[in-house]
Amino acid sequence: MDFSALINPKSYALIGASRNVRAGSSRFIVALQRGEYQGKIYPVNPNTDEILGLKVYSDITAIPNSLDYVMIAVPARYVPAEVRKCVQVGAKFVVVFSSGFGEVGNEALERELRQIINDSSTRLLGPNCIGVYSTESRMCYFPDQLPGPEGNVTFISQSGGMVRTFIWTGFSRGFHLRAAISVGNQLDITIEDLLEFFRTDPKTKIVAIYLEGIKNGAKFMVNLKSIAAEKPVVILKCGRTGSGKRAVISHTGSIAGSNEIFQALMHQTGVIPVETFEELCDVVTMLSVRIPERNLGRNVAIVNTGGGLSVEATDIVESLGLRVPAITEESQERMKTILPDVNTIVSNPLDLGAAGFIPKTFTQVLEVLSQDPKIDVILTMREVQRFKYLTKRIGIEDLDEKYREAMVRGNPKNKYMISIMPKSWESSENFQAYQDFQTQLHAHKIPCYPTPIRAVTALRKIIEYVKFHSEKK
Amino acid sequence: MDFSALINPKSYALIGASRNVRAGSSRFIVALQRGEYQGKIYPVNPNTDEILGLKVYSDITAIPNSLDYVMIAVPARYVPAEVRKCVQVGAKFVVVFSSGFGEVGNEALERELRQIINDSSTRLLGPNCIGVYSTESRMCYFPDQLPGPEGNVTFISQSGGMVRTFIWTGFSRGFHLRAAISVGNQLDITIEDLLEFFRTDPKTKIVAIYLEGIKNGAKFMVNLKSIAAEKPVVILKCGRTGSGKRAVISHTGSIAGSNEIFQALMHQTGVIPVETFEELCDVVTMLSVRIPERNLGRNVAIVNTGGGLSVEATDIVESLGLRVPAITEESQERMKTILPDVNTIVSNPLDLGAAGFIPKTFTQVLEVLSQDPKIDVILTMREVQRFKYLTKRIGIEDLDEKYREAMVRGNPKNKYMISIMPKSWESSENFQAYQDFQTQLHAHKIPCYPTPIRAVTALRKIIEYVKFHSEKK
Repeated sequence: MDFSALINPKSYALIGASRNVRAGSSRFIVALQRGEYQGKIYPVNPNTDEILGLKVYSDITAIPNSLDYVMIAVPARYVPAEVRKCVQVGAKFVVVFSSGFGEVGNEALERELRQIINDSSTRLLGPNCIGVYSTESRMCYFPDQLPGPEGNVTFISQSGGMVRTFIWTGFSRGFHLRAAISVGNQLDITIEDLLEFFRTDPKTKIVAIYLEGIKNGAKFMVNLKSIAAEKPVVILKCGRTGSGKRAVISHTGSIAGSNEIFQALMHQTGVIPVETFEELCDVVTMLSVRIPERNLGRNVAIVNTGGGLSVEATDIVESLGLRVPAITEESQERMKTILPDVNTIVSNPLDLGAAGFIPKTFTQVLEVLSQDPKIDVILTMREVQRFKYLTKRIGIEDLDEKYREAMVRGNPKNKYMISIMPKSWESSENFQAYQDFQTQLHAHKIPCYPTPIRAVTALRKIIEYVKFHSEKK
Repeated sequence: MDFSALINPKSYALIGASRNVRAGSSRFIVALQRGEYQGKIYPVNPNTDEILGLKVYSDITAIPNSLDYVMIAVPARYVPAEVRKCVQVGAKFVVVFSSGFGEVGNEALERELRQIINDSSTRLLGPNCIGVYSTESRMCYFPDQLPGPEGNVTFISQSGGMVRTFIWTGFSRGFHLRAAISVGNQLDITIEDLLEFFRTDPKTKIVAIYLEGIKNGAKFMVNLKSIAAEKPVVILKCGRTGSGKRAVISHTGSIAGSNEIFQALMHQTGVIPVETFEELCDVVTMLSVRIPERNLGRNVAIVNTGGGLSVEATDIVESLGLRVPAITEESQERMKTILPDVNTIVSNPLDLGAAGFIPKTFTQVLEVLSQDPKIDVILTMREVQRFKYLTKRIGIEDLDEKYREAMVRGNPKNKYMISIMPKSWESSENFQAYQDFQTQLHAHKIPCYPTPIRAVTALRKIIEYVKFHSEKK
């Protein structure tokens, strides 16, 4: 099934466009206009002639052009009649924003919709969904969230709220989207359908999914296996617990199914499973910054100034199944020539002392580690907020910038480097410094995390992902 | 042992005060001056007469007054001679900043120090520590971190870096410190000694500890049991794993000991164990905002607008051993009279739809929950960043403020309410909005967290803590 016209529609009609453009459904149009949507927009409302400077049609059948994407935002009971008209005019995709269907037990209304679109060329997304966000055609949902730059992450979600939160998190964490699709109750278009399409979509390199329940288990399994063999797929499956299953029924009318079976399925297909939304975003961040080029070992070097946070990180690394081995004798000797004797530790975790803040020294330390055969991953720890103060103390102008350059220059291609930047003292100013650091490091393939546990949890999953797929080949 | 003069010294001498006040040890003095330390400051350096406007003494013995707190910042090999002089002049507390002792295998130097202070009235903190931070006497460490307001949290830590990070985190998360003590290698003054003191310190209501190894196991056990019976004690014990134990030896020369035995000890004494530094701060935040007044049940109501994040939270709550039961029939009926039919769910999790953003409605919802016997805890979820936009959409001026007031007004005294405020779209402006919300809610006994997993992890530990100690009584 070709979903191109759903992801990049040349025309967008809104059935039930509100005259109030601040509070009603016409906010969708405000968002499209402000976001500079690339297609044509057709508001539909029998009671007005103009909305937001656009000609309004009294009925979808009155629009003279072909329609790629028709959004329906009228009360549930009026939806079938509108869908029927969409089928009549040959609209390619109908997106039902309205809720009040299977998720509230109104199965009859869902059956009616299914009958209407059966044997037609019209496909239906939803109901109970917010539709598509697409950076290519600059489609977005509401005026508080305009499209970001084009990226390669595609998010498929049964929750519209989570789509919105995912997009915002991408803005903050620096990953960019290709598209997001809110599928709602999956009455017609299902996640398994979309997997088939995005498998061959060249602009999608990473797939993230928020899943409550599966419509067609066999098809889902086949399509998931196929796409997972070609690109990383990260899944947050909710409804894992008893109350979670109940919540899922109220939310999208989905049957969550057995969690054990689903976890086994993810394991067999080499999908990356996550347990929280934050973890989903953390894994996507790491994948979008750098997917390890080859099977990655589990030996981690921890590089810091100071000890406590390194000790904590060491416990975390090891309790998550990775290792913190001593670096080689040779590396230790070389470290001793780079670092002063006092206040430093040259084994692993490494304590660089105050010398660790000097950009040149830091690059040298990374160089030694790059040549250490016992190390696969380098975890550096730096509180970004401190650079401003350290600039004065160490007497190096623009220390933050120079330090960032030292990290980038020293980042060994043959190891996997991660930057832990604890966000202890948060302030508006420190926030901006953090973002600037992150943007630069991400651009140079060094993923950034505020805590070791979040970094190492993502890392371990990605090590397992790479291992699974390299063994398959 | 009375540590009052260590926590609130009337005099502070610095042996090894550097002439360079930007980079050397005299930064300690800069910090005391800027922080408006309440006692007298005596720099000691044989090669200069004045530092930062203060008279400099050539030797500690030349200071005419009695000394409460003497900080030593000279290379390790010179430390014994200086400590000997401190003993000679009867200094109450010597704090050894210098490192290069047991943590680098220099046991002989530690033995020497021990002999010097034996049978004297002088007590020694460290070596390899940064000493004391005290909001009462306005003592702090470095100029980038001046004392915050007086609070009731005391932090005892084997890591100086973690003390600094803990203080900064308190600034961001809104908990306030009574004092922090960096104990380093615990050559003389140990954590077990400090536990004895802080047990009866009326200004300390909450104790947090970062621990690597214990010096006197029997004494530690007795003192921990005594203090834990009187006030909440939260412990992050590191060196839990093999590599962690090795890291601990390099860091403070500590023997981490058996993790199983230590976990059992914490369990027996009703101490709150945590596994990461973030968790330590999360638990301290909750304790400092509101300790449940009585044994708290495990039934959680989740209140949100939208579904996905609630479903995620439901799985988290239940997988951590709490429950998300349906609210009573009566409550459901009452919710129906408050909320519109469309786009709302009145069971649990509750989906308030757009009506949930209206302050008055939100207060009414909380009132119903306050009377529901099946509910013990209320977890509300709100993205603070959205209020600015919603103000325009809903047409209520200053919606954020009014909403905050509604939460405060509706906060049921007989339930435990927590506010989850996801930090998806972070920006300088959103950061400030978040902080303002947090400050207000914390002041009204509603703890705030950015994710459900962090809130519920802390909550579960505190429920267990209250249960343990109420059963003891």
